[in-house]
Amino acid sequence: MLPAGEATDATIRSLTEILSRGDLIVDGANSDFRNTLRNAALLQDTGIRFADVGVSGGIWGATEGYGLLVGGDPLDMDSIRPLCATLSRPGGFAHVGPVGSGHFAKMVHNGVEYAVMQAYAEGYELLAASDLSVDISAAVSVFATACSIRAWLLDHLARALAQNPKLEGVKGWVGDSGMGRWTIEEAVRLSVPIPAITAGLYARFTSRQEDSPAMRSIAALRQEVGGHKAKR
Amino acid sequence: MLPAGEATDATIRSLTEILSRGDLIVDGANSDFRNTLRNAALLQDTGIRFADVGVSGGIWGATEGYGLLVGGDPLDMDSIRPLCATLSRPGGFAHVGPVGSGHFAKMVHNGVEYAVMQAYAEGYELLAASDLSVDISAAVSVFATACSIRAWLLDHLARALAQNPKLEGVKGWVGDSGMGRWTIEEAVRLSVPIPAITAGLYARFTSRQEDSPAMRSIAALRQEVGGHKAKR
Amino acid sequence: MLPAGEATDATIRSLTEILSRGDLIVDGANSDFRNTLRNAALLQDTGIRFADVGVSGGIWGATEGYGLLVGGDPLDMDSIRPLCATLSRPGGFAHVGPVGSGHFAKMVHNGVEYAVMQAYAEGYELLAASDLSVDISAAVSVFATACSIRAWLLDHLARALAQNPKLEGVKGWVGDSGMGRWTIEEAVRLSVPIPAITAGLYARFTSRQEDSPAMRSIAALRQEVGGHKAKR
Amino acid sequence: MLPAGEATDATIRSLTEILSRGDLIVDGANSDFRNTLRNAALLQDTGIRFADVGVSGGIWGATEGYGLLVGGDPLDMDSIRPLCATLSRPGGFAHVGPVGSGHFAKMVHNGVEYAVMQAYAEGYELLAASDLSVDISAAVSVFATACSIRAWLLDHLARALAQNPKLEGVKGWVGDSGMGRWTIEEAVRLSVPIPAITAGLYARFTSRQEDSPAMRSIAALRQEVGGHKAKR
Repeated sequence: MLPAGEATDATIRSLTEILSRGDLIVDGANSDFRNTLRNAALLQDTGIRFADVGVSGGIWGATEGYGLLVGGDPLDMDSIRPLCATLSRPGGFAHVGPVGSGHFAKMVHNGVEYAVMQAYAEGYELLAASDLSVDISAAVSVFATACSIRAWLLDHLARALAQNPKLEGVKGWVGDSGMGRWTIEEAVRLSVPIPAITAGLYARFTSRQEDSPAMRSIAALRQEVGGHKAKR
Repeated sequence: MLPAGEATDATIRSLTEILSRGDLIVDGANSDFRNTLRNAALLQDTGIRFADVGVSGGIWGATEGYGLLVGGDPLDMDSIRPLCATLSRPGGFAHVGPVGSGHFAKMVHNGVEYAVMQAYAEGYELLAASDLSVDISAAVSVFATACSIRAWLLDHLARALAQNPKLEGVKGWVGDSGMGRWTIEEAVRLSVPIPAITAGLYARFTSRQEDSPAMRSIAALRQEVGGHKAKR
Repeated sequence: MLPAGEATDATIRSLTEILSRGDLIVDGANSDFRNTLRNAALLQDTGIRFADVGVSGGIWGATEGYGLLVGGDPLDMDSIRPLCATLSRPGGFAHVGPVGSGHFAKMVHNGVEYAVMQAYAEGYELLAASDLSVDISAAVSVFATACSIRAWLLDHLARALAQNPKLEGVKGWVGDSGMGRWTIEEAVRLSVPIPAITAGLYARFTSRQEDSPAMRSIAALRQEVGGHKAKR
Repeated sequence: MLPAGEATDATIRSLTEILSRGDLIVDGANSDFRNTLRNAALLQDTGIRFADVGVSGGIWGATEGYGLLVGGDPLDMDSIRPLCATLSRPGGFAHVGPVGSGHFAKMVHNGVEYAVMQAYAEGYELLAASDLSVDISAAVSVFATACSIRAWLLDHLARALAQNPKLEGVKGWVGDSGMGRWTIEEAVRLSVPIPAITAGLYARFTSRQEDSPAMRSIAALRQEVGGHKAKR
């Protein structure tokens, strides 16, 4: 993840002391769009222009081109168009709305990515759990090459499985960068039901628990009620 | 759980050899209602009457009275009414429809119970995770005694927490009897969305995994794509 | 819902001008515990004491007694104990932790209530969808009277169904007071997976949509991809 | 969807009367793999060989090549390899295991597709619900062209949005072919938690309801309990 949060705020604060009216700050960090809106409000009185760019592509973007989601004044989009064209690919960048909407769209993108990864993961586990001796690597490779769900991420999953078909030495522990949390907070604020994205984040939470407190309470309850002996 | 499945089928088969036209078989097991319907169809030609009773109450029913959900002919309900009155309490039993509906209603009851237990468990985990040093036992005790969610099961959870406030020695491993699975199968057949009941069953599945294959595949994918080092 | 938010803040602000060191403010509103913590911090310098009480029971509390979850200094709990005893019932109130924990515990209670109501609702829909002609009123009445899931809320559902078995004239539109949202925000902050509670809130969001934008986009996608004609 | 079920069974039955020992039947329908296993068992005594092929690609496969997931004896795979090469593209087909595994893998693929479509749909709704005036078409186009979630299906969603940015005249009603249901049934049998796939199917169920019976029961309950006036 690109540095964001306090690092971004501090940089913007120090830039305001150097820059002049009409200069343009472009925030290309993985910022919380709500913070971007706050920074935009702070800059408004200074006359310093401000655009936010949601950047997708991670370590692969350097060779494959980044996806760039630009929020800000259309005139500012014009100013950074050459820069975007250099960093991206044809059709790989666009002005997506006023300031804040670049980081908002990137947040939504990453929220969707949580659910998409979860979808693949559930498919993987089904293939692995089946008593049909499915050749998982072969199946996922066909999924990624020629089926309706073919996708850049699935291509990478197929590659990971080709190299390590049993995922030996890989623990089911998955971190999260915060963007999925912001997505849920915003969905809750906007009254938008997002069960698949939420499932993706909750599964990551669970993956990081040694033992589930929730399930411990059910085990205790069932022991109390039904004589189901809880495991120790 | 009361014995069901093959044990029930075998018993019914052997009873048909002893019983005569007009005799009444009452299946009070935790049967799959689909199996009950099959048995009812088999018995139809024999003239032997058949009623199914969903029984709730577990080991507590003996002292507190059982909840009895009777499916079958209304006349058969009349035949077993005195029996029901003895095993149950006022208002604790009823004729709920034709044969099969007793076990169907019991299945729905248990499906709901999965979701209700999951609800309590999530509440427990929130109380336990908070940085506010909540007195969990005290809070759940008030929930169970005087709040809107007060309930028989919650009473038992409060009791379990009073005896063992930190649930020491209890592992977060939770089995399932099969009724939750039947509920989901039937919901899928009937096109009924049941996200909370499903969440309850899926959480139990997860509780029984040493490590999640799904999460292992996400860890591998993220390592491949983003340079997120997977844990070993 | 008891008035909270700005009304509470304004009342506390005006009280600080009247009250003196050692006086005790008790906030019994349905407040966001995060706001309660802010108010507590504001009051700290004034020497005015502050306790928060989560109150459950709604319009029924007046006759049945309220559930009271008290957060604050144990000494303040002692001060208000007689008051609590009057408003509640034996075992119906308790000190649940430092200031803020009363409203926090109430929030958790209401979060759990969303999931519990959702659980009942899913059970109801399964009974209604079945092709077995289940007598829904009779089944829910037995659930509420004598089965493991028996509960105060279920009692009320049974009563509603007894009066209006087909729920004639009732639209599937369900509001939310905000507490479910706070619960999810806090769960996300604490990395606690709460799928059943979340399912309860999301189902309410969906119930308020004329048509689902999400599903419209899938209909459009399927039309584009697979020749599935979207409905108009 | 390719014809399956009874049509497939009838065809196989009539083929057994024409074919001889050593002939090979290839079932390329969208069959339930459990049915495929039954047909394979029936054919075993006849000496007629049998392979199943899960076919992905829909109406686009004719020009772009199909994804082919072949289950059966490796020797049978060799027999149909030239056929597969003609219908598919390099890397677009593979032997994925014994008979039944082709249709099983296709089922898993489609289950994943439900969750992936749901993921996009949730992202779409978030973009549409935002108060930031996001240019949805532009954002989704960048997602599809250059971001991590870029995928064949997302490309088609971007195209649908480019043609009809407000999805005018599209109703949020989404059917399902049955594969998602089989996926859940199999997950339940295998004790595999699949919350995102399930969310995708349940959202489709909900999309087809005029009014939600579940939500009607909550509205009735809240009216009974809390004086929340239900809508009519």
